[in-house]
Amino acid sequence: MITRLSTLFLRTLREDPADAEVPSHKLLVRAGYIRRVAPGVYSWLPLGWKTLKKIEAIVREEMDRIGAQELSFPALLPREPYETTNRWEEYGDALFRLKDRKKADYLLGPTHEELFTLTVKDLYSSYKDFPVILYQIQTKYRDEERPRAGILRGREFIMKDSYSFNMNDEGLAESYSLHRQAYQRIFDRLGVNYAICQATSGAMGGSASEEFLAISPTGEDTFVSSTDGSFAANVEAVVTQPGTPRPIEGQPEPKVYDTPGASTMESMLEWMQRDGIEVDGRPAELSDTLKCLIVKVAQPGKEPELTGILIPGDREADMKRLEASLEPATVELASDEDFAKNPFLTKGFVGPRALAENGVRILADPRVVEGTAWITGADEKDRHVVGLVCGRDFQPDGSIEAAEIKEGDPAPDGKGTLTLERGIEIGHIFQLGRKYTTAFDVQILDENGKRTIPTMGSYGIGVSRLLAVLAEQRHDERGLNWPVEVAPYPVHVVVANKDPEAGAAAERFVAELDAQGVDVLFDDRPKVSPGVKFKDAELLGMPYTVVFGRRYADGVIELRERGADTRDVPAEDLVEEILSALRPAAQS
Amino acid sequence: MITRLSTLFLRTLREDPADAEVPSHKLLVRAGYIRRVAPGVYSWLPLGWKTLKKIEAIVREEMDRIGAQELSFPALLPREPYETTNRWEEYGDALFRLKDRKKADYLLGPTHEELFTLTVKDLYSSYKDFPVILYQIQTKYRDEERPRAGILRGREFIMKDSYSFNMNDEGLAESYSLHRQAYQRIFDRLGVNYAICQATSGAMGGSASEEFLAISPTGEDTFVSSTDGSFAANVEAVVTQPGTPRPIEGQPEPKVYDTPGASTMESMLEWMQRDGIEVDGRPAELSDTLKCLIVKVAQPGKEPELTGILIPGDREADMKRLEASLEPATVELASDEDFAKNPFLTKGFVGPRALAENGVRILADPRVVEGTAWITGADEKDRHVVGLVCGRDFQPDGSIEAAEIKEGDPAPDGKGTLTLERGIEIGHIFQLGRKYTTAFDVQILDENGKRTIPTMGSYGIGVSRLLAVLAEQRHDERGLNWPVEVAPYPVHVVVANKDPEAGAAAERFVAELDAQGVDVLFDDRPKVSPGVKFKDAELLGMPYTVVFGRRYADGVIELRERGADTRDVPAEDLVEEILSALRPAAQS
Repeated sequence: MITRLSTLFLRTLREDPADAEVPSHKLLVRAGYIRRVAPGVYSWLPLGWKTLKKIEAIVREEMDRIGAQELSFPALLPREPYETTNRWEEYGDALFRLKDRKKADYLLGPTHEELFTLTVKDLYSSYKDFPVILYQIQTKYRDEERPRAGILRGREFIMKDSYSFNMNDEGLAESYSLHRQAYQRIFDRLGVNYAICQATSGAMGGSASEEFLAISPTGEDTFVSSTDGSFAANVEAVVTQPGTPRPIEGQPEPKVYDTPGASTMESMLEWMQRDGIEVDGRPAELSDTLKCLIVKVAQPGKEPELTGILIPGDREADMKRLEASLEPATVELASDEDFAKNPFLTKGFVGPRALAENGVRILADPRVVEGTAWITGADEKDRHVVGLVCGRDFQPDGSIEAAEIKEGDPAPDGKGTLTLERGIEIGHIFQLGRKYTTAFDVQILDENGKRTIPTMGSYGIGVSRLLAVLAEQRHDERGLNWPVEVAPYPVHVVVANKDPEAGAAAERFVAELDAQGVDVLFDDRPKVSPGVKFKDAELLGMPYTVVFGRRYADGVIELRERGADTRDVPAEDLVEEILSALRPAAQS
Repeated sequence: MITRLSTLFLRTLREDPADAEVPSHKLLVRAGYIRRVAPGVYSWLPLGWKTLKKIEAIVREEMDRIGAQELSFPALLPREPYETTNRWEEYGDALFRLKDRKKADYLLGPTHEELFTLTVKDLYSSYKDFPVILYQIQTKYRDEERPRAGILRGREFIMKDSYSFNMNDEGLAESYSLHRQAYQRIFDRLGVNYAICQATSGAMGGSASEEFLAISPTGEDTFVSSTDGSFAANVEAVVTQPGTPRPIEGQPEPKVYDTPGASTMESMLEWMQRDGIEVDGRPAELSDTLKCLIVKVAQPGKEPELTGILIPGDREADMKRLEASLEPATVELASDEDFAKNPFLTKGFVGPRALAENGVRILADPRVVEGTAWITGADEKDRHVVGLVCGRDFQPDGSIEAAEIKEGDPAPDGKGTLTLERGIEIGHIFQLGRKYTTAFDVQILDENGKRTIPTMGSYGIGVSRLLAVLAEQRHDERGLNWPVEVAPYPVHVVVANKDPEAGAAAERFVAELDAQGVDVLFDDRPKVSPGVKFKDAELLGMPYTVVFGRRYADGVIELRERGADTRDVPAEDLVEEILSALRPAAQS
């Protein structure tokens, strides 16, 4: 296919759009790939649409390769199934809701667990029908509070979502593993730089959930990876290495100190230096102290319950990690009113002893283990206690991941230390289990004729987001730079010589590429200067630009590889040169 | 691609779904192509989805061939542009409206004139950029009052909509003609039996609007075609051949008769026979009489105005034709109250004279021309007048198409007579003009640097509806029957012989077809009887079914052409036989 810039529906812009903050957003608008219609709602112009279709094709090929079957559910969905799973309410403001002319409730699908489950229930009844993996590449809707960065976080966007249905957990593990491999192939083919992050801590069961994050400074998600590359996880999923238990016997009794004004890290440190507090014969450090955070934890459908969270004093509490640790319960900090109602809580000086004496549940950082001694609040104003030993002077009711992760922390697998990075979620694979099949009472007869509820996996890829991610990871200050497999056109041909001979030669060249099945973007605009054409070529970002320029008369054509080198090619070698440059990608 | 029925996500049904009335709906559900989610909202199961994609591909190819450029607009659209064109209100209940979390108004796009126009305005400014044709194949939403017949009239459906933008009317005519040819190629390739119908009468200008109607007894639209095939039109677009003017001089004066009770066609005829009324020396007929229909016509934004509509007495009034004739005015029948307020209207005996005397506008059927004499109401109870001559005794203020069309009427082009048929709208091409470019003030500089408003054409194809139309036109009582270019799989291979050798031979055969690039649906189900497999094959409707059956041992394979003959093919010729059967389609 030959597309001529003289007729292509395109206008490139020299100025960044006013509302754009991240490079992909600026460049995709400036290069005429997308155009804003409303907050988080974009049109796909011809170049953007073609690029998107190439990404979709790669996703489709790799899904088909693992035996997944494509279908397509509506975006307009009735309320009832989402009522059954409680998601009609749970989704809150992020769900687009509407009524039809008969006042029946509908929603615009944010994800389709309900429909996939109901359809499997409708069609299948025997174990012989399983396993099955179904997927769609479809427009989804989420009323994001802060749509941002163009198509990176839109309100109407395109997702590949798939679901696996298996009769047992081993089958689910297999379907999960197939998806993991397919996702790796997809992101590898697209040339994305990504990490696979454990999305939840071991609490929910090993590798039950992993996120594929494209590494990018504009990413909204922070994740940690180990210096030796063997480990990556969401901050919420990092498991702290437990402290080493110590013998209790022989440890000195706790001793209370006057510590007027010692309520910040700094003032604690000052006091410990001033009073010469020692631990194991060395001066005490902040990591020897224990903060006691008072929160209210509400289990679903229950009243909130006062809880004390103990974390080492050299770390801030990380509320996201705390919340993830306690899910599905919700957490909030205790208010002044809560302190007033519970006078045993001495604000700024709370310690575990008062909590235990008053029946308040205590959850402690994994470093707080039997025999470890701590400096903490003495439950009296302006006083701290030194040498409070876990297992002797207080006993936590459980363990919790509530402390922040710091760059340089030891990796959970013991290999190397942790680095903090930013990423953009591009994929998520998740062993969902029987939540939806139970909600819809999907009963399948197993080999023994017994009714069994199948188990599900849920797997997503942000297809439209991937286009922005590639723009984000591969641009330079002059424009976009697409990989060959994704570029709307692998080759961009520029006529930059007024000699009609040069134009005619370019015409013959693009016709020949077209005959070889290579799509070409052809800058045949007669009244546009070479300078503007080169600027546009760099902005639009095709991997190879062929210039019929000044030295055409000498039989020399320029071949520019976007983001790499430029070289001269004799006119007679040009087609072969291009074909061989494109070949490796075509074979992948 | 080989798809095995042992793993395909499919369950065929022996019973028609309870809510289905038309064959395409019944069969598409029974054959597992679609599945209902809500009224007028359907899921596409794997077979349906694959078929839909094939139809889309044909539409896309032919649109690309006329130089149309594909892009894609959102389905979720802000209210403002639709406010500008007044369609936010005009659409009434058929528009799905919703609010986002900030209470801003949105809609689900029913058509996208506004967005196309705004985008062209945004990107283009010079005549050099024109002409341009843009299209999308996209999900659209209309809250139909009576969604019916499965995907024939859905509330979420897939449409190809395109728009042309030209600097002048000649350009528009050219873009229109390109679309007309593309549509013919599309529907021809799909194998649809269709007619191209003039959608409006000459009033709006020649071929300004044509509908492509698939001929089908389940169609909602009635259209007329001429017996010699040279003419087809919507009923609203049929132009009546005008009557022949006659000299007024020498015609007898009108004479009033007592006609007690003559208020129906039958009683009129009775009276005329009884009183021996003659016209041109022959007994009077109903076609010599004139009905006078009293209506109220309201021009937009104005008060309704009393109007008399004269139509020959042998025809009913056709309100749809009447309304189309008067557009954009709206019409309603005069009420008893209107008659009471205007005592000169003698109900059942109104004639043109009282209307003219009282300043009521008279619009007459085209057969009512100068010198024609009529039998009509005498404006007195139980009296009629004979020999009322147009141009002497009354003078119409204008002409109107308000009489029904009858089978056998002369064709407007004078060739043959008219036949009434039913059809399903599958395409519509329309010279839209400057309505939207004016509304959004799209100003383009022409060759002389003068600001010019470009003119638009608007063109639609019901892509998902086409799938139902093909099912409707091509089924038989046993199931579907797809054309080769549309079938999800051109070949269906059935193993109907328990001999493992037969199964192995079938495996080799499908592998060979796959290697040749032919997609195969392979019924490899081990425990399903040949009878059930044959029934399923007919229901699913692939064009060719290859049966490895009883006579496999004799080297004979059965080749069944859906809806046609079955023949025996020697095993060694099988691949070549299939390839040559598929070849003509592949070359088209």
